[in-house]
Order: sequence, then structure tokens, then C-alpha cells
Amino acid sequence: MTAAIDAINFATLDTEPFYLPIGDEVALFEAAYAARLPVLLKGPTGCGKTRFIEHMAWRLYRQRRKALEVPLVTISCHEDLTATDLVGRYLLKGDETLWSDGPLTRAVRTGAICYLDEIVEARKDTTVLIHSLTDHRRILPIDKTGELVSAHGDFLLVISYNPGYQSILKDLKHSTRQRFVSLDFDYPGREREAEIIAREAHVDESLAERLAVIGEKVRNLGEHGFEEGVSTRLLIYAAQLIRNGIEARRAADIALVAAVSDDRTVQAALADIVDTVLPATDP
Amino acid sequence: MTAAIDAINFATLDTEPFYLPIGDEVALFEAAYAARLPVLLKGPTGCGKTRFIEHMAWRLYRQRRKALEVPLVTISCHEDLTATDLVGRYLLKGDETLWSDGPLTRAVRTGAICYLDEIVEARKDTTVLIHSLTDHRRILPIDKTGELVSAHGDFLLVISYNPGYQSILKDLKHSTRQRFVSLDFDYPGREREAEIIAREAHVDESLAERLAVIGEKVRNLGEHGFEEGVSTRLLIYAAQLIRNGIEARRAADIALVAAVSDDRTVQAALADIVDTVLPATDP
Amino acid sequence: MTAAIDAINFATLDTEPFYLPIGDEVALFEAAYAARLPVLLKGPTGCGKTRFIEHMAWRLYRQRRKALEVPLVTISCHEDLTATDLVGRYLLKGDETLWSDGPLTRAVRTGAICYLDEIVEARKDTTVLIHSLTDHRRILPIDKTGELVSAHGDFLLVISYNPGYQSILKDLKHSTRQRFVSLDFDYPGREREAEIIAREAHVDESLAERLAVIGEKVRNLGEHGFEEGVSTRLLIYAAQLIRNGIEARRAADIALVAAVSDDRTVQAALADIVDTVLPATDP
Amino acid sequence: MTAAIDAINFATLDTEPFYLPIGDEVALFEAAYAARLPVLLKGPTGCGKTRFIEHMAWRLYRQRRKALEVPLVTISCHEDLTATDLVGRYLLKGDETLWSDGPLTRAVRTGAICYLDEIVEARKDTTVLIHSLTDHRRILPIDKTGELVSAHGDFLLVISYNPGYQSILKDLKHSTRQRFVSLDFDYPGREREAEIIAREAHVDESLAERLAVIGEKVRNLGEHGFEEGVSTRLLIYAAQLIRNGIEARRAADIALVAAVSDDRTVQAALADIVDTVLPATDP
Amino acid sequence: MTAAIDAINFATLDTEPFYLPIGDEVALFEAAYAARLPVLLKGPTGCGKTRFIEHMAWRLYRQRRKALEVPLVTISCHEDLTATDLVGRYLLKGDETLWSDGPLTRAVRTGAICYLDEIVEARKDTTVLIHSLTDHRRILPIDKTGELVSAHGDFLLVISYNPGYQSILKDLKHSTRQRFVSLDFDYPGREREAEIIAREAHVDESLAERLAVIGEKVRNLGEHGFEEGVSTRLLIYAAQLIRNGIEARRAADIALVAAVSDDRTVQAALADIVDTVLPATDP
Amino acid sequence: MTAAIDAINFATLDTEPFYLPIGDEVALFEAAYAARLPVLLKGPTGCGKTRFIEHMAWRLYRQRRKALEVPLVTISCHEDLTATDLVGRYLLKGDETLWSDGPLTRAVRTGAICYLDEIVEARKDTTVLIHSLTDHRRILPIDKTGELVSAHGDFLLVISYNPGYQSILKDLKHSTRQRFVSLDFDYPGREREAEIIAREAHVDESLAERLAVIGEKVRNLGEHGFEEGVSTRLLIYAAQLIRNGIEARRAADIALVAAVSDDRTVQAALADIVDTVLPATDP
Repeated sequence: MTAAIDAINFATLDTEPFYLPIGDEVALFEAAYAARLPVLLKGPTGCGKTRFIEHMAWRLYRQRRKALEVPLVTISCHEDLTATDLVGRYLLKGDETLWSDGPLTRAVRTGAICYLDEIVEARKDTTVLIHSLTDHRRILPIDKTGELVSAHGDFLLVISYNPGYQSILKDLKHSTRQRFVSLDFDYPGREREAEIIAREAHVDESLAERLAVIGEKVRNLGEHGFEEGVSTRLLIYAAQLIRNGIEARRAADIALVAAVSDDRTVQAALADIVDTVLPATDP
Repeated sequence: MTAAIDAINFATLDTEPFYLPIGDEVALFEAAYAARLPVLLKGPTGCGKTRFIEHMAWRLYRQRRKALEVPLVTISCHEDLTATDLVGRYLLKGDETLWSDGPLTRAVRTGAICYLDEIVEARKDTTVLIHSLTDHRRILPIDKTGELVSAHGDFLLVISYNPGYQSILKDLKHSTRQRFVSLDFDYPGREREAEIIAREAHVDESLAERLAVIGEKVRNLGEHGFEEGVSTRLLIYAAQLIRNGIEARRAADIALVAAVSDDRTVQAALADIVDTVLPATDP
Repeated sequence: MTAAIDAINFATLDTEPFYLPIGDEVALFEAAYAARLPVLLKGPTGCGKTRFIEHMAWRLYRQRRKALEVPLVTISCHEDLTATDLVGRYLLKGDETLWSDGPLTRAVRTGAICYLDEIVEARKDTTVLIHSLTDHRRILPIDKTGELVSAHGDFLLVISYNPGYQSILKDLKHSTRQRFVSLDFDYPGREREAEIIAREAHVDESLAERLAVIGEKVRNLGEHGFEEGVSTRLLIYAAQLIRNGIEARRAADIALVAAVSDDRTVQAALADIVDTVLPATDP
Repeated sequence: MTAAIDAINFATLDTEPFYLPIGDEVALFEAAYAARLPVLLKGPTGCGKTRFIEHMAWRLYRQRRKALEVPLVTISCHEDLTATDLVGRYLLKGDETLWSDGPLTRAVRTGAICYLDEIVEARKDTTVLIHSLTDHRRILPIDKTGELVSAHGDFLLVISYNPGYQSILKDLKHSTRQRFVSLDFDYPGREREAEIIAREAHVDESLAERLAVIGEKVRNLGEHGFEEGVSTRLLIYAAQLIRNGIEARRAADIALVAAVSDDRTVQAALADIVDTVLPATDP
Repeated sequence: MTAAIDAINFATLDTEPFYLPIGDEVALFEAAYAARLPVLLKGPTGCGKTRFIEHMAWRLYRQRRKALEVPLVTISCHEDLTATDLVGRYLLKGDETLWSDGPLTRAVRTGAICYLDEIVEARKDTTVLIHSLTDHRRILPIDKTGELVSAHGDFLLVISYNPGYQSILKDLKHSTRQRFVSLDFDYPGREREAEIIAREAHVDESLAERLAVIGEKVRNLGEHGFEEGVSTRLLIYAAQLIRNGIEARRAADIALVAAVSDDRTVQAALADIVDTVLPATDP
Repeated sequence: MTAAIDAINFATLDTEPFYLPIGDEVALFEAAYAARLPVLLKGPTGCGKTRFIEHMAWRLYRQRRKALEVPLVTISCHEDLTATDLVGRYLLKGDETLWSDGPLTRAVRTGAICYLDEIVEARKDTTVLIHSLTDHRRILPIDKTGELVSAHGDFLLVISYNPGYQSILKDLKHSTRQRFVSLDFDYPGREREAEIIAREAHVDESLAERLAVIGEKVRNLGEHGFEEGVSTRLLIYAAQLIRNGIEARRAADIALVAAVSDDRTVQAALADIVDTVLPATDP
């Protein structure tokens, strides 16, 4: 098994990651970081949790560190992710057996923020691993080498999960959950979302506004039986297709209607919204 | 476990792969490719999704690349396909341990289209792997080497699935699904299908037309309890058997009636259609 | 896990494998082979599918190949059969790591018929492997070596399954099934079966005829709740025991009645048939 | 996993294994062996199937072979028994990789009888392995070496199972079952059992007779809900305890009553039988 | 799999671990230790079991040992924790194969307290391992080396579990349970908890008292369907956020209301308590 | 997986292991050993089965063997215990591959008693392994080396299980069970238990007597829904705590009431018994 790890080296970024706050989440995160309290981000798919954590890493580390080292390690959890993937393993290189730190260990040693995305998808042994990093001990034991790594003063553990998904089988254990401060996320409001669409897809404000209206209306469709609304990402896709010459309703068809669900009833409800909001074009 | 991978090297092809469009799918795919939006192909077995993607790779890369390198990597997913199969592994060769890129990594580095056929059959860790390739990051992290591979500008990820099959256990996660523009596929209409049969099996138009009629009628049999109609491929098989001297109804028996189902009621319904459309021959 | 593989080298055979056709299956198979259409053999246990495919390999290759190489590779599938077993693996020999082709790869390279017996018993990754061998591509990708093996012009894939067995969990996927022409097999009629029994067990026609009558009557017992009739093989066993001095009814007891089922009711029904057909001998 | 294998070398035996026939099983087995028909032994625990096969191996091989090599290989099947355990594996010895035949392969090569005890307990891949050994082919393919081992002329495959046990999940597949002649076994009658007890435990005929009566009565208790009667082995245990000074009823208590079941009702029924048949001794 | 192990070396601590007793648990543990009786700690998440065992290790070893070696080994159990992880394994280092003691073995040899946290989460083979350490034998057998390690005189095994969690599938076996003296733990009373909050978060007594009142009220909410009350740790988090400038109710929102549950009803009940106890601040 | 093995070398013991017989079990075991009949010990947790077998090994081997070698091998079975753990494995040491006997093999070769504690917990392949050791053959086949080890004349196999526990899934197979003489064990009567408590905990007879009364009364509580009574071990724990200064009822609280169950009703019933039997002490 391999861990899907995305360690962003800020030295390679020359601009601040774009993030449009939707409430007081920036201040709350800064206070939690000041006290080094572990943070849990809750919210639906594609509402900007990954962007937020990239943005916060930038804010918190830009001034703290002159030499821009690796301050953020993102790990997408899945059911085959093991403790070994996170902590590290011995690798055979030629005649030697060398220890290779895993991404969590690298974050603990260097004082990065370690972001475990969709933590409940991971295997249970990974969950247990983080316990000693999230209480007064702040240590990571490495069984295979016998080393006890005390966390760098800048280290913080952040996890996310999506309450809409969780089955009983895959809920977060209380003994894990009660180690985190929780920040709730949701899709941005209409105006903010229009601003994001216009900026990301390079389309005019009028089109962006219409697509944001579609997003808002679809998310109010809760009673039609689909648990997740359309993500901001899909609205941006629709805008990009339009900018590349696809007729607006057709673009919404393939980026929104067909992408969100296979259920014909749900698709019809979405198509109605699209028809109402987007103008028909002459064939 | 091994990955079943089919990397087509266009340098070995001297003619364009045959594909008869059934709608605006070529234009839509070109617009998605222009914006590098990941694409999901939905549709039943044997309706031409693999042909379509081969055709599009040809269209998009023929002019772009003088030296015809490997622009398409097709991977048939199955439940034993792991992230390691896709990303790569260390191989022992003599005294050395050498890293060997997997097919997804090769596609990411060389800017090929990577086509994951029947994605929902794969193990979950493979699904997570593609997340960072399908958002603003466009990177593939290789845990074992510590490398972060930024996708070549030409790279695009395309996946397919068959909505008729999906059980609740094997549905695409929302957090994966909402990363793709969706193109719906279906069997071609009667005339187009006749054209395909005639071309592929080298039979005359009259026979091809009759077989296409059978295909159309069978697919309208939805109420008899089989979820998939007969594929175009099976109609071509019937034509080929006839061209090789098998009596028409007998050829339809073994290529269509017996091939589609073991259910006697379903077989009888198919046989009725065959009898109506194909002429009896004197014994 | 190991693959149970039976590769028959015709160079070691000096006579044609005996097979008594029960219909037009020989002509149908020859037409399918002429167009290189993959073939699915459907039918119950012990009705002669393995014999048929040996016979067809003999017919099709005898003239085609002067030097009689290995033209038939039979693989009995089971739930631990993996893609690696079929395709091949690296073996350590002394200091070297050598690639060793699996039986499917050998068949693909040398143009043999590859017969996968009871395909639905195999693991799913094996099923996916055969997809690219059964459409217009006719290639076998070998992931571990990076090789794409184009099938030899003589290669054909043949699979079998037994519709009486299949549970919902172990049915053939539509996307696999719709790649094959289907030939139905069943037990031979009374006269043909008597001919086979006489020939294989070296018994006289009268005894062979009586045993064939038993076979026919048992297979008509469908309403007594056993899904498979008695196989021709068991009738031959009974004949062989009689030829070795066992009294006829006692031979039928142990070769037929006790061998087919443990259910006392079913056994009684079979015993009645045996008593009716075979003469009692004085003790 | 390891295979529990018991290969008896007759060269180390100087007397015929004791077996008291209960019917025509010796003649039937000899006829089956003469035609090399695979044999299935059906019957309850401890009724003498293992003894019978040892006896038959002695009978069939004593004269046939001057030098008494290994003519019987007994393999107790269990759910972790794999095809590799039966066929063989590569072993690393110093710098060399040597092939080591498994017990089935040794039996096939040397012409031994191979006895697979409780075949339904084995993994499915082992069941498939024996198919090509039990039809006209009589070969054992060894995938890892590429060798096809033709069975020695003396080789015979014998399997056993206990119909009282079989759950639906662990039944013998029809395609396996219809490859064997079936011999039914049961516990011996009262007189024969008394003879066996007297001989094996070195007790007098009167005590042996009483214990055999207990055995007979217990087996008639079928309506009290235990599927297996008491085995002859346990009756011999009781006799041995008595010969070693334990009071008769107490010996029956621990060797029969407590050994057969934990159910108090069943134990009471057994104790009643013991009290009736065995005389009380003064304390 | 790796064991998450936290071996605290007291040589690196210069102050006594803070622990505020809630009853006679210190005296009871000292008596159990005096007789070397294994101890089971029962109680909910975050009520101070880990702190207690650190405190007891300090008390019991401070005077006993001049050189402060490793007197406490804490192991967080999880479902992938194997006996090998606890006992040790052979490691390949260069040309040599060296045995490496696992954490349990190190504790047994050096006379440390070994604390297995949430024992029921571990695999069953680990549970069996501790049997011979918790009866008159006090030995740890190491199968792989053949060594029998007699426990150092100071060694004691301590385990914990949380009765609120245990499902039937994950209960402690009677044969394990009846080897331990049991100490019940619960959250501290209001006054003691206020003292702990004030001390740990460096906030004034008035705020600490209010947060402790919230803790007490939430734990009385048992009838609202959440099995675990809020932990002391979360109350400290709230205090820390307030000290870092977050408005009191908002801090309680993210550290208590959102952290304890995703259930809107439960959250509303908690928010009511927070509103009652904490003063509103002007915006 | 590792086997938890406890091989007691009597050479290191200078006194007879204490065991107080509760019936004729010593004589019965000696008779079974004289005839080398395998023995099954049935009884609840902590009633002295392990002590009994240690005692019997001492009795039977003390005179038989001048040099006190390893006459008893105890193996605690669990669900990850494999046949390899019992029989042995190849170990790599430097350049050589050396065979290392497992504990069962060592017992078979040296003529020890091998005691498999809680046999039904082990994997099925271990159960099959012991079949050939418990019938007339008395051999242990070692598949990996091809060796057939004939048991030393002194060898005896003893197994235990706890009828109170067994689920249908984990019952002993009839074909295994009917190979053993069965000895029933239970907790000792009041007087004997008081004698044991006084001796083991070094407390006076009056206290020991009261604790034994508690044990007796608790075991009569069967109708309150807990299947196992309190073990003698826990009564000794209570006595030891009292001797170390804990007030009597408090000692009974933590060693008996809280240790036996988490069920409040059951605990109340136990507490009532404790209050009745033990005198209250002034605070």
C-alpha cells in the first residue's frame, strides 16, 4: 500500500494561495494554532477545506520562517493507509538498510502542519498513532527504531471529515474526536461563490452570478434525496466549458446535471433549475 | 496483483482509429481537454467508449506531437488493482534496487491521456490517488521515492463507469465524482449501427441493417428483466459468422440469443425477434 | 497460489482425440475460429466440453502446423487463481532474476488455443485480463515487464462455464460475457452415449445400451431436486467395474447411486431406475 | 501453511495392517483399482476408513513391489491447505533454489495411493488440482516448473468425506464428485466390533462384548440429537482404562459419556445405557 | 503493522506528573503493586487514566531506583497490533539477523510498568500472550528465540478499557478478565475539574468554574443519547481558546458543541447549556 | 504470528507444584497416561487445569527421568496460532537456512507432555495436525523437511477447553473430540478452596473461609445471567489486598465485584453477598 501524500514546498510558490473567508474561521484557526490545539475541519466535498489549510499554512509560516521549508503535509486517507505509510519504513538500498521517515514523521520533526484529509477512511492503527501527538505528550513513537520523536514546537495536526458521509462503521471514535477543536465548513454564499467562479474560470461576472445561483438552488434541493449539493469546483468547470465555446445549457448538462447523479429524477430537477437560470441559445 | 494495462503507441498505427460520432461528444471532449478538465465517460458495455477515447487521443495528439510517443494509457480496473500497480514499485535487478514507474506515473510524466476503465472496480486507495491530479494541484505524489510529480501540460485523466452495474457498495464517492465533467454514451442508432456492422464485418448493407434492427428491438425489451441490451460487438460477431458460412438464424442463436443470457424466457424473447427479422433458410 | 494448467503437446499424441459430435458444434467452432471470435462453452459437468476442445485443437492445428508444437493450453480456474499465475512472474535463479511466461502468455505468443475452464471460479483480476485479448486489440499487456504482447494470428481464447451452478455472486459480468460467441452443450442422446460407453469401457453394446438408458432416465428426474444429471463418465465407471467382475447392480450402486448424491430420497429414486433397467443376478 | 502429511513407508512394517471387512468393500476397491477408477470413501468419524486404506495399500502393493517403497500418502485436509502444499515449492538452500516435490507429486511420480482425508475441508484450489488426475488425462501439471507429470501406472487417488458434517458451504462440487466411485462405510456390527475391541485393547471377550453393546445402543440413540455415534476408538479407550485399573463405569464415564458430548441430556441418556450394560462394582 | 508505543523515560522528567486523586485509587494501586497483582483501569475517554498511571509510576519508582531508567511503557492497542509487535522480531542489519525486543519484552526484562491502553482493541493473540505474565508463572515466552523471560521483580501489567464502548464482539474474555484487580475511573467532580482547568489552561478560577459547570451539566444529559460526556481535555481547550482571545461562547462552540457530536439535537442541547452558563458578550 | 509457549523445565524447580485434588482425577490421568490415551480437560476459567497438568507432569516424570529435562510444554492457543508455529520453521541465520523445531515437535521428540490450552481457539490447521498423534500411528509429519517424527514413548497430548464458552462456530469437531478421554473439572468445594486461599495468600483461615463462602455463593448465582463464577484466583487477589492493608469490603469490591462484570445488576448482587459475608469496618 502507498500513502497518497502531497507535501507542498512553499519555496516553490510565489503568491499567496487564494482563499475567500466565509466567517471567522481564520481567527479561530489562529487562536487554536497559538495554543497548539489540534483542529478538525468538518464540511462537504469541494467546499474549500484543502484551500483553507493551504492558506492558513501560508499565513502562519510566511513570517515565522525565512527559509521557506515544507510547512504543510497533506495526506489523503484511504482504507489501505497503514501506520507504516505514515511513520516510515526501512528500505533496502544496496547492502544497507536505511530508515526512511514517513510523511507524518517528517511533519513532526520539521514543525509542519500535517493535514490528514478524510481521516475516517484510514485504518484504525493510524488513528491510534495520532493520540500521543494530540495530548500533553506531543510525541510520536517510532516502534521500529525505538525512537521517541518529540514534536517540533511549530507542529500541528489537522484532520478533516465529512459528516454527510459517515456510516456507523466509519465514525470517528470518541477517544479520537475529543482531542480536536472543530471548525464547521460549508459552501460559500451566492456572492462569494460568484466571485470565486469569475476569478478561477476567467469569465464575466454575469455568467458567474448565474452559475452561483444554480449552485444555491441545487443545494436547497435537499428534499430530493441527494445528500451533497453541487461543489464550487463543478460550477467552475461549467464556466470553463462555456469559455471554451460550449453552449451554456450544454455545458451545465455535462458539468452539473450528469456529474452530480445518475438518478433520472434528480437530474430532471437539476435540469429544471439550469433551464430557469441560464438563457436558451438559438440553435 | 498485476495491473492490466494497455498502452497504445501511436507510432505503430498508420491509420486513424475508426469512430462514428453519435452526437456532440467530440466537441465536448475537445473543450474539456482545452481546459484540462477531467472527464468521466458513462455508458453500457460495448457501446464504444474505448474506441472513442482512442479516437480522441489520435485527434488531439496527431498534430501536437511530431514524434508519435505513447499518448494513451488504458487501464482496466479490477478489485485487486492497487495504488502500487498504478504508481510504480522498486524492482530488484541483480544487486541494484531500481524504481520502475507504473502506468499512471508514465502518463503523468509524458503528458498522455490516462484512461481508467471501470474505475469503481478498483480498490479505494487508487481512487484517492487521483484526487490531487484532478484539482488545481495537478500533482502525483510518489510516496516511496518522496517525489512529487507535476503533471505534464498535456496530461488528462479520463475514467469510465457503467451506471447500469453499480451497486451501493461500489458507487463512486461524491468527493471523487465531483471532480469530473460527465459524458453520457449509449448504443448508436439503427442506421449508424448498420454502418458500423457493415464496415467491421465486411458484410453487405442489407444484412447489416437487419442485424441493427435486431439490436434496436432487443434494447427495447427492457421490461423483460435484463439490464443490458446486446452490444454492437455481438451484432458484428453474428455478421462475421454468417460471412463464414453459418446460416443466419443459427449465427444469431450463438452470437446473440445464447450469448446475452442463460434465462430461458429472455432467450425466447430474443429468438422471437431474430425469427421476425432474419429470413428462414431452407434446410 | 498455483495455476492448475494442462498444456497438451500434440507431438506426443499419435491418434486423434475421440469426440462424437452431438450437433453442428464442430462447424460452428470452425466458423468462429476462422473469424477468430472468442468462444464460450456452456454445459453441465462431464458432458464432454474438455474432449471437444481437444478434438477441435487437433482438427484446426493438424494441418496448419507441420511441427506439432503446443496448440492447446487448458487452465482449470479456481478462486485463488490470480492474474500473475496466468501472465507470468519473475523467478530468482541463482544471482539472476528471470522472467517466466505464464500459460496464458505462452498461448498468446505461440498461437495456441487457450481454454479457461470454469472461468467464473477465477478471481476478478483474471477476468479483466482477457478483455484486451477479446476485442479488436488482441493484445496482452504484461505490466511487470512493460511488454505489450500482440496475439499470434492463430491464438484463440475459449472459456467455459456451467449455467446450472452459477450463483448471483459468481455470474459472468456482462462486459465479459458480451465478448464471446456461445455454444450450448448437453449430455449426448441415448444412442450416442451407448456408443461412447462401449468404446471407452470396452463392454458389449447391450450393457452399454442399458447404462445409457439409466443415464437418460436419471436426467429426466429433474423434479426430484438434483440439478445435475449423472455424467457420461460415471456410466463408463459402472461399465468398467462390471467388466472387472463386479455384479451389475452393485457396480451401479457405487458408481451411480452413491456417487451422485447423499440424499436418501434421491438415492432411492436412482436405485429404482437401476433395478428396472439392469437384470438382477442370482446371489 | 503446512500440509499435515502422513506418508507410510511399508518397508518399516513387518505385519499386515489389521482390518476386519464389514462387507464387499475389499472386492469393490480391488475392482476400482484394477480399472484405476478414483474412489471416494464416505462414512462417519472413527469407523475405520484410514485403516481400510492402509489395509488395501498393503494388499495391492505387497506382491506388486519387491522393494517396499512408499505406496501410501495420507493427507489430512484442512482449510489452510493450499495447492502449493500438495504440489511442491521452491526452497532456498544456500545459494541455490531447489524444487521440492509436495506429497501429491511424490505419490503421482512413484505410483502410490494418495489418500486425501476429509477433502471438503481443503481450499478450493486443491480440489481443482485433482481434476486432471481423475479423468482420461491422468496428469499433474506443475505450474511453477512448467512440468506435466504423467501419473505412474500404479497411482490412484482416494478421497474421503463425512456426509454427516457437510454444510452447504462445504459440499463437494458436482464436477469433482462425479469423478469418483463411492464406497459407503459405517461402524461395524456388534460382533465384529467386539472382536476389534478385544484385539486392540487386549481385554477379554466378555468385556469387549459389553462395550460393543454400548456402542450399538448409543448409535441407535439418533433421536436424541447428536449426529455422530460413539466411535470404535472410544470403546477401545474405555477397555484400555479398565485394563489399567479404572472401575468399569468410571472408565465409560470419561471415555464415552463425557467424551461424546457436553449436552447434559445427551450425557444422561448415555449414562443410562452404560449403567444398564456394565455391572456396578462395590465401592 | 507497527505498535504505537510510548515509553516514557523518567530521567528526562524533572517534575512529578500532575494528578489530582478523586478517591482512594492511589492507595489501592499501591496495595495491588505491593502484591504484584495485575490491574485493570475502567473508565471513559479523557478522564485521566493515562495521567494516573504516569503519576503512579513516578510514585512507585522514584525512590526505588536511583538511576531513573524506563519505568513505564504505554502501548495504545488497535486492531492491527500483533503479538510480534509486542514481543519483538528479527531485524536484518547488514549481513546479520539480530533479535530486537519489543516493548512488552523490554518492560518485562527491566521491571517497568507496562500499560496496555484499550486492550480490547488489540488482536486476540496479544491477549493470550499476557496470560502467563498474570498468573503464578510471571513469564513471557518468546517463541522465535526459544527464550523464557522471567519477569523482573518490579514488573507489573496494567490494562485499561472503556465499558461504554464495548460491543459483544470486542468484550474482554472471562479468562483474561479474571486475572486483574479492577479500578473504576470517572470524570472528576466540579470543584476538582475547575482546579484542573485553571491549572492546565492558565485561566482564572471564575472561568474555570463555569467551564466545569458546563462539563457537569453535559454529563447529566445522558438521556439525550450520547454515551460519552465531554472530556476534561475539551474543557481545557475551550479555556485555552478564550485565553487566546476568542469570545467565550464561540470558543465553547468549537471546542465543545461541535466537537462532541454531529447530531443537531445533541448540539442544540449543549448550546443551551453553554448559553445558560457563559455570559453573552456584546458583538 | 507467534505461538505463546510456556515450556517449563523441571530442572529449575526444586519443589512439587502444589495441587489439591478434588476427586479421582489423579488416578484417572495416571491410567490414561499408562495407556498413552490423549486427554481432554474440560472446565471453567481459573479452576486449576494448568496447575493440575503441571502437577501430573511432576508426578509422572520425577522418577522416570534422572536428568530433569523439559517434560511439559504448555501452549496457549489463539486464533492466529498456525501449524507452522507448532511444528517449526526454517530460519535464516547468516548464509545458512536452518530448521528450527516448534514446541510441539520438541515435545514429540523428547517425550514431554504437550498441553494445548483452549484448543478451540486455534486455527483449524493446528487441529488437523494432532490427528496422527492421537491414533494408532503416533507420528508427526513435518511437511517442510519431509520428516516423519515418531512420538517418543513418553509423549502424551493433552488439550483443554471450556464448555461454557464454546459457540457453534468454535466447537471441537467430532473427529477431533473422539480421540480423547475427557476429565471434567470444576471449582473446588468451600473447604478445599479456603485451604488454597490461605496457603497462596498467606492469610488466616477465618478470612480464607469467608472468601471461599463468597466464591460458593457467587457460583450459585447462575440465574443472574453470568456464565462464569468467580475464579479462585480472584479470591486470592482479594485476600492479598487485605493483607496489604486494604479494608476487606473495598478489597472485595475491586478484586471481585468490579472484576467479574460491568453489569450493574450483577455487581449489586455480588456486593450484597460481600456485605453479608464480610464484616463492615468502622471508617
